[in-house]
Amino acid sequence: MSSRIEFCKMDFLKEKLRSLDTDLILIVADLNVWSLYSKTLSLLNIDGKNVLLWKAPDGEKVKDFENLSSALDFFLSRNVHRKAHVVSLGGGATSDFSGMVAALMLRGVKWSTIPTTLLSMVDAAIGGKVAINSPQGKNLIGAFHHPENIWVCDSFLETLDQKEISSGAGEIVKYALLSRDIYAKIIPDVEVKSLIKDCVQFKEEVVTEDFKETGRRKILNFGHTFGHAIEKEYHLPHGISVVWGILLMDILFNDGKYKADIFKIIENLNIDLGESPWLNKEFPVENIMLYLRKDKKTTSSELIDLVVLKEIGNVEILSVSFSEIENKISDKKEDIKKLCSI
Amino acid sequence: MSSRIEFCKMDFLKEKLRSLDTDLILIVADLNVWSLYSKTLSLLNIDGKNVLLWKAPDGEKVKDFENLSSALDFFLSRNVHRKAHVVSLGGGATSDFSGMVAALMLRGVKWSTIPTTLLSMVDAAIGGKVAINSPQGKNLIGAFHHPENIWVCDSFLETLDQKEISSGAGEIVKYALLSRDIYAKIIPDVEVKSLIKDCVQFKEEVVTEDFKETGRRKILNFGHTFGHAIEKEYHLPHGISVVWGILLMDILFNDGKYKADIFKIIENLNIDLGESPWLNKEFPVENIMLYLRKDKKTTSSELIDLVVLKEIGNVEILSVSFSEIENKISDKKEDIKKLCSI
Repeated sequence: MSSRIEFCKMDFLKEKLRSLDTDLILIVADLNVWSLYSKTLSLLNIDGKNVLLWKAPDGEKVKDFENLSSALDFFLSRNVHRKAHVVSLGGGATSDFSGMVAALMLRGVKWSTIPTTLLSMVDAAIGGKVAINSPQGKNLIGAFHHPENIWVCDSFLETLDQKEISSGAGEIVKYALLSRDIYAKIIPDVEVKSLIKDCVQFKEEVVTEDFKETGRRKILNFGHTFGHAIEKEYHLPHGISVVWGILLMDILFNDGKYKADIFKIIENLNIDLGESPWLNKEFPVENIMLYLRKDKKTTSSELIDLVVLKEIGNVEILSVSFSEIENKISDKKEDIKKLCSI
Repeated sequence: MSSRIEFCKMDFLKEKLRSLDTDLILIVADLNVWSLYSKTLSLLNIDGKNVLLWKAPDGEKVKDFENLSSALDFFLSRNVHRKAHVVSLGGGATSDFSGMVAALMLRGVKWSTIPTTLLSMVDAAIGGKVAINSPQGKNLIGAFHHPENIWVCDSFLETLDQKEISSGAGEIVKYALLSRDIYAKIIPDVEVKSLIKDCVQFKEEVVTEDFKETGRRKILNFGHTFGHAIEKEYHLPHGISVVWGILLMDILFNDGKYKADIFKIIENLNIDLGESPWLNKEFPVENIMLYLRKDKKTTSSELIDLVVLKEIGNVEILSVSFSEIENKISDKKEDIKKLCSI
């Protein structure tokens, strides 16, 4: 199962929507993106289509049951039918959410997505993982529902601030460690735009091979188990949290062997990583372990699947017990602290 | 894709749960069923398993976002992992709801179901359609998520009242018209218990052929489009509403040709149909049309798929416009009224 991925100019988006095989288009748009681009895009008046619009609060805030219920009510009360097509316009949170709306409405209608952040272009929009958050953690409530089309217009990046670009580039650090080809392209001051296509193709290939994440797809979680815990604990951007997750995994499972390589990638991608969130504090082992135990990758009450780097471009999945992780964190306490002070 | 369907005695259920490949069982049980059977079943203490229980308010009440969110929170806050197994104990509403919990938790965990009503034994438990309701209609928010196991113990029927048995038998009327084999078995005063296996096998065969309802599975909606509208309008039991839906379809699309056959089946199955809900009143065309327009089977803003009887054991799917349906109702106004006074 795979999506049609097209790189196109913003001007062509209206035509893309016009060519969808439906008479009813349901747009779920990030509030901010909509206010910046609605005039340019002019998506509400499309020949032969009834277009409905639901505006999403920006960022992760949208991903809860209240908004899900509200968006579904909005559309269902306007006589939605099975051939309706949901179109997401926004970043990863918007597409995670829109995909849930599409997955659950009438037991599933088709959807397409227009990612507007670097993070969503290289990661969130691809692969059909859709979700909302629960008080217990990110993306714990969700489904697999592949978008029909992913339309990538990199000119949306022009209105992104450096923090968001850095967060997106954080996911590119992951790809660089999973794929030697992508790694090889990351020379000093490479333009991140030029890497989008490579990351998209890499992810799409992995996902097509293993849609339901029973095997190889798991490698895409590299850095994400600790990343999600760090994101939750410190409210850092997703991609930045993933980079910290990758650095932690390197300390715990590779004795910091790839630290220099990872920092080189971070530097070349111009990522503003900032200081480690636990600088001058104790690493919050207890909270982090609590989040880990609630992670989706747990496979029993005592085990979790972790992605470990074997060499650049090659990882393996290890089933590790929580007690082993706790011991490792305790053993590497000083290295973790030192990581903090870079 | 199909479920393992087993007919077994109540005493064996504990052993069935013990043999599941998981260390964590999440029971979602109808409150009333639990208070009647929890001692007999003794499902909370199973060797080698951690068993959690969430009690569901009885009937359709459970099928909303508030309960869905509450059940998911309950389990997620207790360190649920991907190999957790949801077990539903109750009628169709409970299994619709439990299946949603299983479908969405961590993007999907396995589930099994123990149907405790006739309706759920012959229909709701089979086929992996799971859902909650929206203010706009029944089952408008849902997913396809096949249960691993369906354990049918007909001794649960002993504590059902006549109204519930009649509702379940209403679905059997549908099967009798879809399958000549089942039709042939419905002799005067046949025991409905004896028909469960035939109905289950018929539905399972249809569903296995067309899991996502793109083709043949649509026949199972026979009587359901009007049925759901009637259920919503008059708050009648599901199976009873379906019988009225079947009778209406016969008037509108077959000039009442099968009315006598249908009433013969109703009589033989001992169904307490009662009087038509629109007796001595006008048939509420406007409301019914509103519900129809919100039905999941609509395929555009003007068309809906309807299942029409060609002969007993043989139906066809027609794509019909709403205006045509409205005209037919108007043409057959008197026949519909007469149907009321039986």
